[in-house]
Amino acid sequence: MKNDLDALMQTNNLDAILITGPGQHNPAMVYMMGGGHLTNADLVKKRGEGAVLFHYSMERDEAAKSGLKTKNLGEYILADLLKQAGGDNLKALVKRYQLMLGELGINSGRVALYGRSEIGTNYAIFSALQKEMPGLSLVGEFDNSVLMFARMTKDDTEIERIRKMGKITTQVVGQVADFITSHSAKNGGLVNTNGKPLTIGDVKSRIDLGLAERGAENPEGTIFAMGRDAGVPHSTGNPTDQLMLGQTIVFDIYPCEAGGGYFYDFTRTWCLGYAPDEVLALYENVLSTYTKVTKELQLGKPFKDYQEMTCEQFSAQGHPTIKEAPETQQGYVHSIGHGIGLNIHERPWSGITSDENNCLVPGVAFTIEPGLYYPDKNMGVRLENSFWARPDGTMELLADYPMDLVLPVKIA
Amino acid sequence: MKNDLDALMQTNNLDAILITGPGQHNPAMVYMMGGGHLTNADLVKKRGEGAVLFHYSMERDEAAKSGLKTKNLGEYILADLLKQAGGDNLKALVKRYQLMLGELGINSGRVALYGRSEIGTNYAIFSALQKEMPGLSLVGEFDNSVLMFARMTKDDTEIERIRKMGKITTQVVGQVADFITSHSAKNGGLVNTNGKPLTIGDVKSRIDLGLAERGAENPEGTIFAMGRDAGVPHSTGNPTDQLMLGQTIVFDIYPCEAGGGYFYDFTRTWCLGYAPDEVLALYENVLSTYTKVTKELQLGKPFKDYQEMTCEQFSAQGHPTIKEAPETQQGYVHSIGHGIGLNIHERPWSGITSDENNCLVPGVAFTIEPGLYYPDKNMGVRLENSFWARPDGTMELLADYPMDLVLPVKIA
Repeated sequence: MKNDLDALMQTNNLDAILITGPGQHNPAMVYMMGGGHLTNADLVKKRGEGAVLFHYSMERDEAAKSGLKTKNLGEYILADLLKQAGGDNLKALVKRYQLMLGELGINSGRVALYGRSEIGTNYAIFSALQKEMPGLSLVGEFDNSVLMFARMTKDDTEIERIRKMGKITTQVVGQVADFITSHSAKNGGLVNTNGKPLTIGDVKSRIDLGLAERGAENPEGTIFAMGRDAGVPHSTGNPTDQLMLGQTIVFDIYPCEAGGGYFYDFTRTWCLGYAPDEVLALYENVLSTYTKVTKELQLGKPFKDYQEMTCEQFSAQGHPTIKEAPETQQGYVHSIGHGIGLNIHERPWSGITSDENNCLVPGVAFTIEPGLYYPDKNMGVRLENSFWARPDGTMELLADYPMDLVLPVKIA
Repeated sequence: MKNDLDALMQTNNLDAILITGPGQHNPAMVYMMGGGHLTNADLVKKRGEGAVLFHYSMERDEAAKSGLKTKNLGEYILADLLKQAGGDNLKALVKRYQLMLGELGINSGRVALYGRSEIGTNYAIFSALQKEMPGLSLVGEFDNSVLMFARMTKDDTEIERIRKMGKITTQVVGQVADFITSHSAKNGGLVNTNGKPLTIGDVKSRIDLGLAERGAENPEGTIFAMGRDAGVPHSTGNPTDQLMLGQTIVFDIYPCEAGGGYFYDFTRTWCLGYAPDEVLALYENVLSTYTKVTKELQLGKPFKDYQEMTCEQFSAQGHPTIKEAPETQQGYVHSIGHGIGLNIHERPWSGITSDENNCLVPGVAFTIEPGLYYPDKNMGVRLENSFWARPDGTMELLADYPMDLVLPVKIA
């Protein structure tokens, strides 16, 4: 949680962190200052001190909303800096960073870099800044990121926002189910009242609208993938395909609060009208694994233990898994879950190679999402819910929704 | 344009470019491969050759949609790489990059880095890769970015997509005007049929819905700022404020195609019911400057000439400008425009310090947006349209919409 940050910085021997980039769709920045319409800003936090937000002049009121100490970048006259730098924009910007850090008394020590922005431009800036300030050590943190560790555990306020996104998500899923089942089938495919095919594109428009109506957005889209596409985990579905009876549809929806806030993650697999025996068997395998894994969730356990459990379970059911065949594109091909928060994917990780810091400690919010995929048989099944490891040790399902495979459909 | 890329790479002495990050909301990646649900991918293009897209196994069909040569990252067994790297995830990933580049014959030369992603993580990765491959020179391009130069000029296909976003934008603006004027005023503020205040939040919901209905999104929100907020260019407006008569409302809308595609940028200033004399005078100053600047737009001219013109014009009208007072927060406080494309702000730049490469050459798409701001007088006016410098030398207004200040409102 955020109040662990200073201790984490001490562990990683960091004197400060510097976050750059916009105020929206920039998880580190949103985490530290709450988001807002900042086209580009810098946030600097020294260990043991509050953060300072550097902002453009015309974004001063947006910056003020953060409640942080703010500093107007307009006070550094760029035209003057540019003159001093002989017309070199990069040098002028680096000089501004030197002044900014200098004013905060940061002239040496270790400073970690954060923010979602253009990696090339920032590689140029921070490499140049590093040369100009040899006493300072600019650090890119990789898998020991203090911010990702802090963000891994959610407090009550954060989890309430994720719960609300869960509610919105399941409302939209319910709306989509109603929308689909209000149609009739003709010759094996769904049609609207004019007899025209109901397409995946039509359904996706409904999803987008349902989210917008509730103040949410889906910056990374939505998976609504049918048949062979359902058999490839991240295929998003072909908008012009007609919804057909008896095919698996993987519906994976991962919206966030407007402006790039907290995400939810949720998947159901549907068959319209009926489920062929082969699909039903696959679904039952996934459901039984989901049930086993979620029943055994236990505070403090390494998340990858559940990946092992899932692989064993699916292996026992006769499916290939990435454990014994890392390159397999059939059977169980991904990991059992991941943390959710301001990133749709974040700590804790559950992959077999994930380290010992990825445990189900109190406060983590995470998905459980077993799935089985047979693209050559035109089918795939995934079931996913999101959970919170409560401080009292129980695992809270963050949004409830029926797991049913078959959506009944009228025949025209 | 994209087919200038090899020549630009030659000019900058680049042997290859490497773009990393997701397939959506990542302009460089979207530009080169068309977008799609890739959670994280790498695209490498050698000078004079086609691009190769490295993707995760379960995103293979999404990657294939790009039409590019693809390579499945699943072929590099991460568990093996990790074992070789003694369990160090960063080293394993760096090794994978070495293998990837090696397979393309990239062991030396200059490789520029691109992509919108986590700057700290990537600083770690590419600093480490640089150490491992001393014969290679990894380059962060700053203001001479080949991709930003290529993207500065739009071809027919790109401009048609921007035109379509312009159409959607003006449709939504029209819908919002109808929505507002369908309400009546009572005691100086707009109310709905139940007598409850109509708020900025209500209007923003309409905007979000109108965009979603048309398949667009607004990842960076929308400015609908009234009174004092209208006097601070990037204040987005307070959702709980009631819409009041006779106050300036700056309505700046900048949506993009779903998934982080091409943007449009558009601003109107509205007064509901009536405009006080002081506001009317301000509006007329802005409109006359808009008219003068757009009339004089000329192919090949430096964009900043129009910033000079705008400053002169506003100065002559008695307003402070950032030209003679860089720190001013009153009068004219920003630049006259910017390029639009896969970034909402991109080349060409019009700021006084922008370099000679920012000219209105054939193919650029750009905004013209004069504005005057008096936060202490609770007013601000901005008018903005977007244009394309056509190959034939004419300047095409990309979406037409009335410039009227006053929206008539019934009194209850």
